[in-house]
Amino acid sequence: MAIGPERSSQPEGGAPRTRQVMVFEPRDGALVRRGDRLAVEEPLEIRLETPAGAATLTVTMRTPGNDMELVAGWLLAEGIVEGADDIAQISYCVDAAYGGDQRFNVVTANLRVPARQIGRERMSACGVDGAASIEALRAAGFPPLSDGPRFAISVLTELPELLRAGQRTFQVTGAVHGAALVDATGTVIIVREDVDRHNAVDKVVGWALLNGHMPLSDTALVVSGRISFEIVQKAARAGIPMVVGVSGATSLAVALAEVVGMTLVGFVRGTSCAIYSGSARVVPG
Amino acid sequence: MAIGPERSSQPEGGAPRTRQVMVFEPRDGALVRRGDRLAVEEPLEIRLETPAGAATLTVTMRTPGNDMELVAGWLLAEGIVEGADDIAQISYCVDAAYGGDQRFNVVTANLRVPARQIGRERMSACGVDGAASIEALRAAGFPPLSDGPRFAISVLTELPELLRAGQRTFQVTGAVHGAALVDATGTVIIVREDVDRHNAVDKVVGWALLNGHMPLSDTALVVSGRISFEIVQKAARAGIPMVVGVSGATSLAVALAEVVGMTLVGFVRGTSCAIYSGSARVVPG
Repeated sequence: MAIGPERSSQPEGGAPRTRQVMVFEPRDGALVRRGDRLAVEEPLEIRLETPAGAATLTVTMRTPGNDMELVAGWLLAEGIVEGADDIAQISYCVDAAYGGDQRFNVVTANLRVPARQIGRERMSACGVDGAASIEALRAAGFPPLSDGPRFAISVLTELPELLRAGQRTFQVTGAVHGAALVDATGTVIIVREDVDRHNAVDKVVGWALLNGHMPLSDTALVVSGRISFEIVQKAARAGIPMVVGVSGATSLAVALAEVVGMTLVGFVRGTSCAIYSGSARVVPG
Repeated sequence: MAIGPERSSQPEGGAPRTRQVMVFEPRDGALVRRGDRLAVEEPLEIRLETPAGAATLTVTMRTPGNDMELVAGWLLAEGIVEGADDIAQISYCVDAAYGGDQRFNVVTANLRVPARQIGRERMSACGVDGAASIEALRAAGFPPLSDGPRFAISVLTELPELLRAGQRTFQVTGAVHGAALVDATGTVIIVREDVDRHNAVDKVVGWALLNGHMPLSDTALVVSGRISFEIVQKAARAGIPMVVGVSGATSLAVALAEVVGMTLVGFVRGTSCAIYSGSARVVPG
């Protein structure tokens, strides 16, 4: 895969990730003013140009920053691309009709291939029946997960704290989700943040995709929020064999993890956790 | 508005909201098995039948239960209907091709009016430029919010605990979001839960819509998760003048709250909170 300069350069524009505001807080029965910092949330429009035509795919609400990673990760998660080689370029809008900050809220992905799945079809990927959907996913061509890595219990239970320590925007706002890739030594490879927990995962995977770090077969994904079906789906699509979270997993997340052979760990608090599936990757120590 | 029997009846089908599983947990350096309960997550397909035609609108992942409320609230939030009178009936799929539990994952809404907004347009409702979007929303015809209610500080800071006390599925799984309507005396009117925090809000609003409790001008909406743009948008569309959460609000959520004159309160913890907008509705006491 060749990463062109247009794709690897990521002009973050005038897009701060936090914003200063004044708030009131109660004190001694009255309201007093103080400063506060909010996580920035802005819409991002994702456009697609392919050999078969152009389309606006979606508008997502996200925290600005790492937008090319977000788009690349999202394209992989949705099955629209299968790898970095399918992507020719991802860039901010160059339409003269958009000025200033506005152009940093529109990203166009140029693909070398026709989009593999578009729009509503992806939403119906799991069908409408839980059982049928799992069968469909079994046949949906997720890349096989590696047997490894093996995580010692003592490393595993420290991962949420490692994620939080890397969340710079959370430390200021207390209100953004985070996702991180880590290896079995407990080394943090990358941390990304977003007001939307799905976006944080897309940014992490997109970073790996755009920077030649695929496959991710030796890593675990650590997330700050609940582990839903979509989070497991994104990890599975990226070939990540293990997902770890501080909150719980849903029924469909566990079902999908079992189908694809992924290790799923939730409620990591102190030295405690719940291993929902794939416990062979968790070892004493 | 007349609520027909088809709409007020809510056969919840064989759709439990939690599921028993076995998990491993570390103990004394080894992994031991124990039982656990997961929040159920299943897809729901929303179909629309109108005088102008039929369509499948979306597939959302949700916790089963209160599905008619979820659909009604979602239709209002999206601007597809403006009130209960626009809805003739909401019912589970009666297609013979679907059997058993599966038909409880498809809901058809029959409208008396052509759908006011469909599909992608709604996603672009906020445009791609934060500033332009706020201007657009100013003109977007949100119902005017009432001046009331007035919440005493001591009532306000107790609201998250009242919500949590009403979250039966959270108490078992620790992994679902909740939303509640409360009045200024601190009385909880309704609590709903879902793996997705947006769905929990849609269920609360849909309950009010289907049971003749509109307008909601004397209530506050309490949410368990972060307060994003979409949460404020849903509350504004339902005419709720106040949103209270245990976590923070995003920049665009605060901007929209200011435009529509809504009171927005975040980080309610102990006797502390941050009032982002509309502080006139918060009074000593």
